[in-house]
Parts: sequence; structure tokens; C-alpha cells
Amino acid sequence: MAGSFCKGRFFSLFDYKTEKYIVAKNKKVGVLYRLFQLFVFGYIIGWVFISKKGYQETDEAIQSSVITKLKGVSITNTTESGLLVWGPEDYVIPPQGEAVLFVVTNFFETPNQKLGYCAESPKVLDGHCRDDKDCKKGKMVVAGHGGMSGRCLRKDENSTGTCEIYGWCPIEKTNRPQRPLLTNAENFTIYIKNFIKFPKFGFSKSNVLQTTDESYLRKCRYNEELHPYCPIFRLGDITRRAGFKFQDMDTFGGSIGIMIEWDCDLDKGDCHPRYYFTRLDISGCNKTLTTGFNFRHTRYFKNAAGESYRSLFKVYGVRFNIMVYGKAGAFSIVSTAISLAGGLALLGAGAFFCDLVLLYLIKKGEAYRERKFEGSR
Amino acid sequence: MAGSFCKGRFFSLFDYKTEKYIVAKNKKVGVLYRLFQLFVFGYIIGWVFISKKGYQETDEAIQSSVITKLKGVSITNTTESGLLVWGPEDYVIPPQGEAVLFVVTNFFETPNQKLGYCAESPKVLDGHCRDDKDCKKGKMVVAGHGGMSGRCLRKDENSTGTCEIYGWCPIEKTNRPQRPLLTNAENFTIYIKNFIKFPKFGFSKSNVLQTTDESYLRKCRYNEELHPYCPIFRLGDITRRAGFKFQDMDTFGGSIGIMIEWDCDLDKGDCHPRYYFTRLDISGCNKTLTTGFNFRHTRYFKNAAGESYRSLFKVYGVRFNIMVYGKAGAFSIVSTAISLAGGLALLGAGAFFCDLVLLYLIKKGEAYRERKFEGSR
Amino acid sequence: MAGSFCKGRFFSLFDYKTEKYIVAKNKKVGVLYRLFQLFVFGYIIGWVFISKKGYQETDEAIQSSVITKLKGVSITNTTESGLLVWGPEDYVIPPQGEAVLFVVTNFFETPNQKLGYCAESPKVLDGHCRDDKDCKKGKMVVAGHGGMSGRCLRKDENSTGTCEIYGWCPIEKTNRPQRPLLTNAENFTIYIKNFIKFPKFGFSKSNVLQTTDESYLRKCRYNEELHPYCPIFRLGDITRRAGFKFQDMDTFGGSIGIMIEWDCDLDKGDCHPRYYFTRLDISGCNKTLTTGFNFRHTRYFKNAAGESYRSLFKVYGVRFNIMVYGKAGAFSIVSTAISLAGGLALLGAGAFFCDLVLLYLIKKGEAYRERKFEGSR
Repeated sequence: MAGSFCKGRFFSLFDYKTEKYIVAKNKKVGVLYRLFQLFVFGYIIGWVFISKKGYQETDEAIQSSVITKLKGVSITNTTESGLLVWGPEDYVIPPQGEAVLFVVTNFFETPNQKLGYCAESPKVLDGHCRDDKDCKKGKMVVAGHGGMSGRCLRKDENSTGTCEIYGWCPIEKTNRPQRPLLTNAENFTIYIKNFIKFPKFGFSKSNVLQTTDESYLRKCRYNEELHPYCPIFRLGDITRRAGFKFQDMDTFGGSIGIMIEWDCDLDKGDCHPRYYFTRLDISGCNKTLTTGFNFRHTRYFKNAAGESYRSLFKVYGVRFNIMVYGKAGAFSIVSTAISLAGGLALLGAGAFFCDLVLLYLIKKGEAYRERKFEGSR
Repeated sequence: MAGSFCKGRFFSLFDYKTEKYIVAKNKKVGVLYRLFQLFVFGYIIGWVFISKKGYQETDEAIQSSVITKLKGVSITNTTESGLLVWGPEDYVIPPQGEAVLFVVTNFFETPNQKLGYCAESPKVLDGHCRDDKDCKKGKMVVAGHGGMSGRCLRKDENSTGTCEIYGWCPIEKTNRPQRPLLTNAENFTIYIKNFIKFPKFGFSKSNVLQTTDESYLRKCRYNEELHPYCPIFRLGDITRRAGFKFQDMDTFGGSIGIMIEWDCDLDKGDCHPRYYFTRLDISGCNKTLTTGFNFRHTRYFKNAAGESYRSLFKVYGVRFNIMVYGKAGAFSIVSTAISLAGGLALLGAGAFFCDLVLLYLIKKGEAYRERKFEGSR
Repeated sequence: MAGSFCKGRFFSLFDYKTEKYIVAKNKKVGVLYRLFQLFVFGYIIGWVFISKKGYQETDEAIQSSVITKLKGVSITNTTESGLLVWGPEDYVIPPQGEAVLFVVTNFFETPNQKLGYCAESPKVLDGHCRDDKDCKKGKMVVAGHGGMSGRCLRKDENSTGTCEIYGWCPIEKTNRPQRPLLTNAENFTIYIKNFIKFPKFGFSKSNVLQTTDESYLRKCRYNEELHPYCPIFRLGDITRRAGFKFQDMDTFGGSIGIMIEWDCDLDKGDCHPRYYFTRLDISGCNKTLTTGFNFRHTRYFKNAAGESYRSLFKVYGVRFNIMVYGKAGAFSIVSTAISLAGGLALLGAGAFFCDLVLLYLIKKGEAYRERKFEGSR
């Protein structure tokens, strides 16, 4: 007896149990449910599988290396600096070819500054004075250029003057620049070498054509159709593609984002870089106070007597920020199963909703309720 | 006949089929299931929809541009360097206003180094010698300052000396600094201009007030309530908000993280920057050997004879690392459906668990099993 | 009556309703479904819970700070530069110890350049000329070194010459380098200090041993088993672990990625850094034109008369890019529930598939259909 019981148990283990359904011959709810089913299958096939490629395992941990190199030369002529030749070693800051780089398009040099005493710039609010008492000796001028000596320098007794300071003299005379000095910066070219790896799939690629023709990379220019693997861009073209003229930003400076997107479908072997350009410092077309980009840097010298003097450069220019992102996908049975199950779970939600309609919203609901719930009374 | 069969088939296609349930008049399991349902609905509404905003499509691929500018000036007086004025062009490294920047708070200058022969620093273990044989000519001193000349320089024959090296002489005399030299670095201000874009929604914003009042950004200071769009911070305030005194890190240096978070709900038009500050080089409050941040940089000069000499600066200071992250969300019907279905899937798990209780854990389980599984015997 | 009705309603609220199943005594489908169930439970336990740790809440927003410091010294001897000593302050660019750093292994100096007139380099295609008309005065030489003066410099009337330019003269004589000059760069060591924080869990850690033994970090070398918390690496070891010899990249330069991975299981208190090294500028082992890494930088001087002159350095070297990524996980009841429900949803998909087999693919399907769908006729 026990044996046959166990045997029965054992066999019933392999009996397939399937939910019992009752058929509600209600066309409205039936059509509603079928429509919902159609929608879900459409969603699974169209959205999850075709658009989102839910059958693929993806790797978003892209490893990327960016190297940049600029070419072009410009000559400027100013009263302060004389005739000056600017090569990439001068106008690219920092010069080491990073993914974030600044290209000088305008500058103002204050040469031969020495440590000493002179009047603070009248533009510094905290340096204004009417009296020596306003310039407390040793006090630093807030947002200014040095420490107060204790003297107030005025034209005459009734006017407002500025404190004398100890600092690098003469003080920089900043004026709003009128026009860019590196006039042909627009024609400089930037070579962007990007190398990516998707470690999960052991896949790596570069955005540069693997060629043995040495002269190709000297002469080519990027073109989406003709030269997609020649990553050399004219600066003027970059700003144009970002929706701006180079002239909009060469006087006061600006900031441009260069996005390189790698959206790789390794099943198809389809993995190409796409370039997007966007201006990063302006919203819409309203120019505001906060637009522009400049900073100061210095070159230090020593004279024969060992005294230090320096040239202070206020440089305006365009900052390029190269950002690489991407993902790679390849078929995976686990991803397929999860995507499928996730979609099918939606069917349950639809059945739940149709049940509510059937049992509570239509006239014969009470009858269906009794049939659906066996033993409810 | 075939027609009527097909017609039957066709109509039965639109019959709605709904699962048949049996009602188990067992209050314990019933209450258990209702509680579970309540929990799931609470979870869906409270967690998924209100807290996690599951009805929104999100964009986490934030594009960000950070520009920084420091203001403030300091004067130092040391025997090696004399009276020196430090402006942002000197104490910010690199000077180009990047998102990662270093502010000098302390330094040690070794001026007028020339290439030549001198004794290696006694601090370099590998440079110690008792004999000329310890200083093999041409060998580089590991972690030292130059190449050995072959001579061992000792006070007398019995003492331990250091090898003579060819290098930049005199060798830097490093001592543990006692106090910071840029004493008012705490009062320097940093202006952080951050511009973000969410490409999926075409939404962009800046953390700087769009004002026509030129003087606003000269005078304002950040204040969460009063001036949330004035991104100008005193360095001392930043370290204070990170939980440290500026004096904890101005002598030996340190590292501060400035996080800007944009958590944008575009449905409500609610998109504001929030600032978080954290010290990045210390855990808890235990100071260890590894704390501090310093590096060396040089300035090269040439004398009238064309010979090179240089100033070596060992600078200590605070590194600021500005990190921007964020996400934007906006209503999407697909996201709503997925979140809903995911939540409802939980109901199935609850029913599965209650079934187990009903069929196997309570006394009348056998009876329910027979009713639930039709035709099991 | 109404009271008893309501009471009935109220009690039926707590009746547990469970789906009615019909038992199909079909062993094939039964075994199929059981196998599927086994697969799903295996998937949930093995993949979701053990491999993916689905019971944990994770924090992927790792906050990281990287500081680097190099040690080592090298002496070079060239006709242009003479005997030169290179310390970290010279060969690390930029010197401030960032996560992206460049180590000079080879260089070519063009000393004493002055602004003036000289012949363009014959390597610049755009500077070639047969006639003064080819050198339009004031025109910039594309990818060249200056602006044309209007003269064509030729050996004799029939040969091709180069335009005279106004630029920094003499022009750099670039030749393909034959061998590296900083021969012992391989033995330089890099100290990588990484500090991470997982803000969600308030957990922070460093990759440096917290020791009071000052000499430990002077002498130790990284070793996965013996010294996992001594983050000091020989450059040669780094390239070797990336699968390349240092000699493969010291002449022309290269790019190495150093990945630090923190995969933390905070439940077990298991949180250690792991280091991975990969070459970022080469795919497979084919060397192409695009390999190598070099850039130019300058040092400016002024002579007694105030005239500027400069040294132009073309430096070749290895760029190290330190990338930190990681995640931390800790037990969370919500994550457990979601993972469980997601896995169980798969069961529904399996039942759906088995139903199709039972009802439409096996012989007795019609009979099962009638039993499953009550009232279908």
C-alpha cells in the first residue's frame, strides 16, 4: 500500500498541472484582452527586441583613451607683445594632448611685471580709498592684486583713489577685448585619436583608419560618408556643427563638447564612431554675463641680477571637452529569457484589468463571479 | 459545416478566458494574502511611484562642463624666496580653470639649482655609502636626485656619508613644514560655473543666476536659501562643510571633493543644483602617514652665458575635485507600464507562497488540494 | 438582511482565492515543466542570488580620488641639450600628480629658437615652392611653422625649395627617433594613492596600508599576495602585465590604462582593490602608423636685451590613465523581493509554453482544452 502510495506520489510529481479557465462568452472583454495581448506582443517584439535589443547582453563599461593634436599657426601683432608666432605648443593649454583642451583665440599680455609698489586697479572695489586709513598696512585687497602698503594714492584730496599695494607691477590693464587676435584659429585642425575597449567582450577599436598610406592622415578631413575614419576636424567646422559661428566665441571664449558615441552591435559586427558637437556654456541663444572663458597664466624670467620678473597672459579661447561613451551588445540566452519574461509579466497585468471589467463593470458580472470563484457560496 | 466550424473558431477567439479560482474559506490565509496585497500596493504606490518615480523615463547621461576661477591674493616671506606675492595665476595649478584643481597653501623653494656635482641628500637610503665602492660611477640613485660620480663624501673615515652625484645642485633640503605660508588661503573664493545638458530631453541649465546685474557675481556668496544660484564659495567654508577645519590641511595638503547633484523632475520643472562637500583623503578622523598632498614643479631660467638654472618648488595644498552627477526624469507611458507590471509580478510571488501555506501547512490542506487540482485522482 | 449581506461581503473579503488547476496526467509535459521549474530555481539561486547577489542593494556611484607620485632619476646626453638630469618634476607632465599622467621616455630639444626669418621645413607639404609666387606674403603655412615672407628659398633655379617664413627659428629638425634617451625609465616607480567612498553606505577605504611604519611605503613593491596594500609599481612591470615590453613603447610612446576595481561585499566586509593593466592604443599586435604618443612643449627665456627665446621640446613617452570603478553591495529586503519576483515571473513564461504544448501539440490536446476551458461549448 505504502509503495503504491509513494508510486502515486512520484507519478503525480510529473503530472502537469495547468490553470483551469472559465470561458466568458463576452465579446467586449474578449476583444479588449486580445487587443491588450497584441499590444504586449508588439511591445515585446518591437520595443524590447528590435529597438532595445533585449536579446543582447550589453557592456557599458567602455574603456577609452583620447589623444588630441592640433595643427595650425597664427601670427599676432600687438603693442605689448610685438610680432608673435603662435604654434600648437603655445596656443594649446595644456600642451600634452588631453581630452580636455583649451585653444587660445585671443590674449592680452602684461609684460615685464616686477614685485614692487604701485596703485591697485580702479576696477577692484575693495581697493578704493579716500584716505590712508582705508588702506590698512598689510591687509590683502579682496579680489585684488596684492597687499596694501598703507598709502592711498589719489589725484587730489577730494577724489576717490586706490590703495598702493605691494604686488606684481604694473597691474594688468584689463579692457573688454574688441576682436580676436589669433584671427585664423578657425582654420586650425584637431586630430582626435580615440581608442576604445569593451572588456566584457574583449573587443577593441580605434576611430582612425588602419592604413599604411602615411600621407592619408596628413591630408584627409572628416566626412561622415567619404572619410568616417579620418578624425581630423577644422575648428570652424566643429563650432558650425554645434550650431554656432566661430566668431561667436573667439573674442570672449566658449566651451564646446565633442561627444564620440560607440553604439556597437557585435552580432552584426556593426561598430562605428559617431560624432556629436554641442556648445556647453550657453542655453538657447541668449548671451548672458556668464558666457565666455578666460584665465591667466604666467612666464617667469630672471634678470642678470637674479631678480624675478614675469609676463602675465590673460588668454581667451575655446575649451574642447571630448567625451566618449558607448555600449556594446551581443546575443545572450539569459538576457533573452529575462526580456521575454519581463514582457510576459505584462500579460498578467492585462488579465487582472480585464477581470475587473468582467466581474464588476458589466451586467452579467455576478454570474461570472460565481463561475469564476468555485465554492464562493 | 466547415464554415460554421471556422465561424465557431473565429468567435471563440474573442471569448474571454479567465482563470477559475476556488474559494478557500480560510480566514488565516485570506488575511495573510490581503496583507500581502496591501504591502504590494503600498510598495508600488509608495516606493515605485512616489519615491522612485517609476512613471518617469530617466536620462542619466548628463553632459557637464565645469569652469572654475579663484580670487584672492597672498604674500609670503621666506629666507629662500624673499617677499613674494601669490595670485591665482601662481597658486592655482593648472591655471586653466579645470574641474580638478590644486590650490597652493604652503611651499618650499630651492632657488638657483644648477647641474653639477654635490652630495646626495642623507634622506635617500640608496645614497648612503661607507666607501667609494658603494658609489658605482654612472649608477642612478634609486629614489634619489641624480647619477653617482663614483666618490663617497664623508666627514671622516669612520662615519657614514653620502655618494656624490651629478644632478641639480644644491639638493633640496626638505623638512616637515611647521606652518602654512599662504596664511589667508582660507579666504580665497572659488567660482564654480557648471553647465549641464540632458540630451534625451533637450534640457540644459546652468548653476549661475542669469542676471544682467554685473556686480551680483562680484559680491555674492553661496547660500542655500538666499543665493542658491551664486556658486561662489570661500575655501574655508568648503572645508568646514566637509567636516574639517582649513587648518587641518593647509600645512600638509589634502583633497576635497565637491559634488554637484542635479536631480531633475522635468514634469514639475524642478531642477536645481545641490552641493555636497567631502574630504577625499581621510577616513574617520585618524590621521595617518598617507595624508597630505604635495608635489614639485620647476621654473627654468638661462643666464647670459646660456647656462640653465632653475627654481624647484615643493608645493603643499588642497586639491579640489568637482564631480557633477545627476539625472532627469519625465513622464513616459512605457516606463509606467513596466513599473506597474514589475510590481504586479510580486503579487504572483505572494499567491505562490499563500498556496504553499494553504495546501501543505494547514490541517484541511488535503481537502483544498483535491478541490484545487481537478482530476488529480 | 442588509447587515448579513454586508457581513457576508466582509467575510468573503478574507476568503482566500486560489487558482483552480486541472491535472493533465501527461508525463511528457509534466517532465518538461518540472525541468523548466528546476532551471528557473537554479537560475534564481545560482545566477540571481549567488553570482549576481540579487539580495543586495548596490551603490555604483563610487567617489574616488587618485594621487600619483613618481620616483626615479635619469641622465641623458645629447648634442643639442648636453648632459641633462631628469627628475619627476621634469619627466612627469603635468607634474601635479593627477590620474592621467605622461612620463617622458624620449625627447628632442631644439634650443635657442628666436623669432625671425628662416626656411620652412621641407617636411611641410604646403611650404614647398618653385617660385616666389608660391609664397604669398602673410599667408600662413598650413600645418607649418609660421607665416610666409614672400620669398622662395631654393638651392638653384631648377630645384624645388621651401618658402621663407617668419617664425621661431631655427625650425625643429624632426627625425624618427632611433632609441629612447631616458634609458632607465623602465625602473621608475609610480605610487598610486586611491581613496574611495560609497556614499550610500557611508563606507570609505584607501588602497594604501594604514601603517605607522614610515619606511614601509619607501621600500615595498606591489605584490598581489604579499603586499596587496602597497600600491607602488615599477613602470616596466606595469607594461609587462599589460602584455607588452617597455621597449615596445619607450621610443615612440604609448598609452597604458590602469584600472582599479573595487567590488565590495559589505555583508562579508570583503572590499579590496584589484588592479588591471591594459594597453590603450593598440589592438592585437599589429603596429600601425597611429601608434605612439608625442607632443611638444616649450620653455621661454629672455636675454639681457629683453628679447624672447625659447627651447622647444618634442617629447615621446607613455601616458598612464588611472581609472577607478567599482560597486558595493549590502543586504536589502526590497532588492531580495524584487529579484525573487523577477525570477518567479519566468515560471509564468514556462507555464505558458507548456500549455501550448499540451493543448496544441499532443494528440489528446482537444480533450485537455475542453477540461481547461470550462464552458467553451
